[in-house]
Amino acid sequence: MLNTFIFPNQSKNNHICLLKLFLVLTPNEVMEDLPGTKQQLESVKHLIADLRDRFEEYLIKQAFKGYPAILEGPTQHIMGLKGKRIRPILLLSTCEMFGGEIEDAMGPASAIEIFHNFSLVHDDIIDNADTRRGAEAVHKKYGLHNAILVGDGMLLHSFIQLSKSRTDNLKDLLRVFNKAASEVIEGEQYDVNFETQDKVSEEEYMLMIKNKTSVLLAASLQLGAIIGNASVEDQQHIYDFGLNLGLAFQIKDDYLDSYGDTSFGKRIGGDILQNKKTFLLITAMNNASRSDLEEIKRLSSEKDEAKKISDMLAIFDRLNVKGKTFSKMEQLYSTSMKSLNKLSIEEEKKSVLKTLAEMIYNRSR
Amino acid sequence: MLNTFIFPNQSKNNHICLLKLFLVLTPNEVMEDLPGTKQQLESVKHLIADLRDRFEEYLIKQAFKGYPAILEGPTQHIMGLKGKRIRPILLLSTCEMFGGEIEDAMGPASAIEIFHNFSLVHDDIIDNADTRRGAEAVHKKYGLHNAILVGDGMLLHSFIQLSKSRTDNLKDLLRVFNKAASEVIEGEQYDVNFETQDKVSEEEYMLMIKNKTSVLLAASLQLGAIIGNASVEDQQHIYDFGLNLGLAFQIKDDYLDSYGDTSFGKRIGGDILQNKKTFLLITAMNNASRSDLEEIKRLSSEKDEAKKISDMLAIFDRLNVKGKTFSKMEQLYSTSMKSLNKLSIEEEKKSVLKTLAEMIYNRSR
Repeated sequence: MLNTFIFPNQSKNNHICLLKLFLVLTPNEVMEDLPGTKQQLESVKHLIADLRDRFEEYLIKQAFKGYPAILEGPTQHIMGLKGKRIRPILLLSTCEMFGGEIEDAMGPASAIEIFHNFSLVHDDIIDNADTRRGAEAVHKKYGLHNAILVGDGMLLHSFIQLSKSRTDNLKDLLRVFNKAASEVIEGEQYDVNFETQDKVSEEEYMLMIKNKTSVLLAASLQLGAIIGNASVEDQQHIYDFGLNLGLAFQIKDDYLDSYGDTSFGKRIGGDILQNKKTFLLITAMNNASRSDLEEIKRLSSEKDEAKKISDMLAIFDRLNVKGKTFSKMEQLYSTSMKSLNKLSIEEEKKSVLKTLAEMIYNRSR
Repeated sequence: MLNTFIFPNQSKNNHICLLKLFLVLTPNEVMEDLPGTKQQLESVKHLIADLRDRFEEYLIKQAFKGYPAILEGPTQHIMGLKGKRIRPILLLSTCEMFGGEIEDAMGPASAIEIFHNFSLVHDDIIDNADTRRGAEAVHKKYGLHNAILVGDGMLLHSFIQLSKSRTDNLKDLLRVFNKAASEVIEGEQYDVNFETQDKVSEEEYMLMIKNKTSVLLAASLQLGAIIGNASVEDQQHIYDFGLNLGLAFQIKDDYLDSYGDTSFGKRIGGDILQNKKTFLLITAMNNASRSDLEEIKRLSSEKDEAKKISDMLAIFDRLNVKGKTFSKMEQLYSTSMKSLNKLSIEEEKKSVLKTLAEMIYNRSR
């Protein structure tokens, strides 16, 4: 259990834990715009920081006991780059929301985080990425062969961590983890295939981002729910909630890259410059006339960066890509809210989650 | 349970199953030289073939249900090259020897075989091997990125198959499987490091072959024992038995490459030509004078193949490499026999295993 909650008018603050997770997805400026929640949000920030500290301590002191010494260097390199730890925090908080013990969830939480980092090590090889979180990618620093093996060792170790769970829910945890892990690898394979694929349908794109991003977030929520002894129905609802919110979040990422607020100095058009197959580009291509398609193809090798961005945005405008993307996000948000409404937790807790989902949705705007 | 046993004077032939496994390691000529066992051996051969067929059927019809379709091609390629299936046959037979049901062991047996094949896919990348079992290596046929991902998918799928085991022994199965799998990856990393390492100690070499080869054989035996409800002590004895017999077998492989019987047309010296760091070369280097070491170094780039082999064998003779290797095998054999003697199964069954171990040992001579 979390030790110190400084949240007003709450004796039991389980639902706050879930709140925390989504706040990390929400920028300060949006949080601060919400009236009357400033004190709450400060408390929540403390809770996230506390949970992250506890997880980090487990990761350093416990999670790699018995790990092959020969793989330690590159493993510490990638794990030490300290991502936001969104997945384990999601898992731990959901567990607590349903009344489970944080200690019971540390093994599965580290399994999820180690698995996620394994996927980064192998993805960086496949994507020819030189850097990761501002540091050298593992295959750049340690070479291809070491990166393959360390990834294998980490994938394996995620199962070793998961296997430490209590026997009475181990089979369920393995089922959820196995399915998500399998889908992540499947998603990466789709992504590899997209590289050489002329046309990608919206359905294919959605399947890819679902597998590459959303399923692991959704599975984190479900694993936490299992450890917290949630009903099978609630497990499914929280999974669906996470899946659709994750999809909305992913598409929002694409959206903001072209239509984000530039008043904070954020640059627009990075994805366009990289010819990245985003939801926007795929929507454009799937709605383009032959001449638009030829123009898109020509722009992919345009050297003038400012012209490349403005010409592509003009095509997006012509094809109503902004509206179509926005409508997709709205649909995903609505689906995730439906799952949230089905969750058999107290209305009070539900309303917090609703507020949260709204905040994420508003940010997408 | 196996349907038809045609073994004389045996109502319950569980111990025969274990026999079968080791026979696949033993060439026909040795088997046929053993007096009075010809009929027995024919029966055993049938039993192996039957068990392999049943496993193959499971592999084709059951083991890849739910596997990502997008990974199927390369997976079928490597799995379809049909190795000897030694590990699953070991597992299934040991299970039956201890009174377990073959059907309960099919999931773990396929987990071991899929894991083994995953390790081949990634090892072939790391070893720059173009071929595997006479066909193209996965990374040659499908490219590096696909080979990394398919390996990941197979590693993951081995856990999915293992997870299908009965809940009451799942935790034990995972513990044994996790440990072996982790050691296999550790062993491959040792092997990678050896490439750039001038001197390899005997201890390092033994650790590497233990991890790369023996632990998975030993774990196969132990997993079978767990499913057959063997005692913890017997699980350990059968593990140790397999581990040391595996080591003896591995060193024998090195030994025969230089000192094997050439009367059946087998070529001698392949490892020497490849500058492979075998037990023999390592023993030579660790016992060599400075001038011998210089000679060994010079020979590594010798172009005349016949001269390279005969000069290296002369160094081996000078340093008594043959005797030292033989003595190492004898020691490993003796250790494996001690574990066998501790096994709490009927003397009659034990005597069969003893005969088997002797056959393997005689072959090493």
